[in-house]
Amino acid sequence: MTPSRNLPIGIFDSGIGGLTVVRELRKVLPHEDLVYLGDTARVPYGTKSPSTVTRFAVEDTAFLVQQNVKAVVVACNTASAWALPTLESRFKVPIFGVIHPGVEAALEQSRQLRIGVIGTAATIRSRAYETALLARQDKVKVFTRACPLLVPLVEEGWMNHAVTRTVLEEYRAPLLRKKIDCLVLGCTHYPLLTTALRKLTGPGVHLVDSAESCARHVRRQLETSGLLHPHNSRKGTILSYVTDETGRFSALATRFLGAPVQQAWRVDLPTVAP
Amino acid sequence: MTPSRNLPIGIFDSGIGGLTVVRELRKVLPHEDLVYLGDTARVPYGTKSPSTVTRFAVEDTAFLVQQNVKAVVVACNTASAWALPTLESRFKVPIFGVIHPGVEAALEQSRQLRIGVIGTAATIRSRAYETALLARQDKVKVFTRACPLLVPLVEEGWMNHAVTRTVLEEYRAPLLRKKIDCLVLGCTHYPLLTTALRKLTGPGVHLVDSAESCARHVRRQLETSGLLHPHNSRKGTILSYVTDETGRFSALATRFLGAPVQQAWRVDLPTVAP
Repeated sequence: MTPSRNLPIGIFDSGIGGLTVVRELRKVLPHEDLVYLGDTARVPYGTKSPSTVTRFAVEDTAFLVQQNVKAVVVACNTASAWALPTLESRFKVPIFGVIHPGVEAALEQSRQLRIGVIGTAATIRSRAYETALLARQDKVKVFTRACPLLVPLVEEGWMNHAVTRTVLEEYRAPLLRKKIDCLVLGCTHYPLLTTALRKLTGPGVHLVDSAESCARHVRRQLETSGLLHPHNSRKGTILSYVTDETGRFSALATRFLGAPVQQAWRVDLPTVAP
Repeated sequence: MTPSRNLPIGIFDSGIGGLTVVRELRKVLPHEDLVYLGDTARVPYGTKSPSTVTRFAVEDTAFLVQQNVKAVVVACNTASAWALPTLESRFKVPIFGVIHPGVEAALEQSRQLRIGVIGTAATIRSRAYETALLARQDKVKVFTRACPLLVPLVEEGWMNHAVTRTVLEEYRAPLLRKKIDCLVLGCTHYPLLTTALRKLTGPGVHLVDSAESCARHVRRQLETSGLLHPHNSRKGTILSYVTDETGRFSALATRFLGAPVQQAWRVDLPTVAP
């Protein structure tokens, strides 16, 4: 069965950070309907093991497929890093992760081919960015750094706090010493730190926002496969689901989406055999 | 059926922080066998909603009861704050939380009856410490502060890092302005920050470690109910279970337990009807 062009696009993330991807999708595909799932009861994924992250990602995708989506965007870098092959083999809808588009964007921007990548502990441990960068360009030098404190700092709302600047300084110093000219923000939360990061890295380092490059990639892919919504003058809707209670969602969601968001619905995910 | 005195004591926590309670239990009850469960696949609980925390706590307790324990210690402050009444009504074994013992210890230590409490966002929002303190002593003044960054900082191993000192300074300043003479560390991770906290608060503020007071409380209660292990010259064992992969457990566990710990086993928890 060919997925219908009129169906919504599904997006999932470990929590609410994936709304930065929704924000970028809204910019490039304003006429598409979006169904967002945030696994807020089990957030974060970035501190957990490959098998657990993969199991959660399969359950998230199964839920979105039940909602009859035409494609699934894995907004979470950690889930993209570990679970993409499993999702592609288990589900028939097209699945898009954030790593591949981020890697393409980084290779377009970097002149010296000295690229830094920051992400959660699990994303960095996966070596997914290094592997994908080297697969496309064997001259590239990749320098990575796990930054486990950045997600909690963003969720605390301390984007411009002195503590956050000190933490960022500590994390990025070893990368800058490697003379990188491009830094991939390999986590949904990091685009909210762009201003602070730009001050620290200076104009010589290009920041690659994986949310932005992912959204452009999804548009290109849907276009190529003839899956874009046929009515491109309409305004798409956003329907949000979360696995924990919905109370905290709206306040935080507005921060990530950069616009007011409708109330989310709480759901239980389907249990899927490993 | 009276639980047998020879059975182990079960302890659960959202993750590995509850090993600070295991450490204290080992000191006061060295001859007891302990079965520890860390829900590392869904950690943390402190950012999640009451209904989700309660559901997780019921599943954790059901698992420990399946292991045939004579009592269950809820080492997690957030689960103690929200789930204790539900656990007590659903399970027959004695259930011990960390809030009540922490409150007793604080009231013993505080002369001015001006008590500060720090904890996760969910613990503070529950007002569990305030309610329990006021129920025992209506003259007490309670000042609380949610400290969501402390758990990630401890897990990063930055117990004595300049960033941690700045964050602690920011969190505790409003409490010290209230002239508290006692500060309850209302989260399993905080005892690892005792040295840093003591420097900031000075000798005039007594720190109450809820892990320590909980362990003493459990010993008293087991004694009263005739449930202490009959052979008090033996050395008890510790058996650990986690819900995520076990790889990261040992390294972090040693930090929290203050001693090497045996390898843990990964388990799936029983699903329990709400």
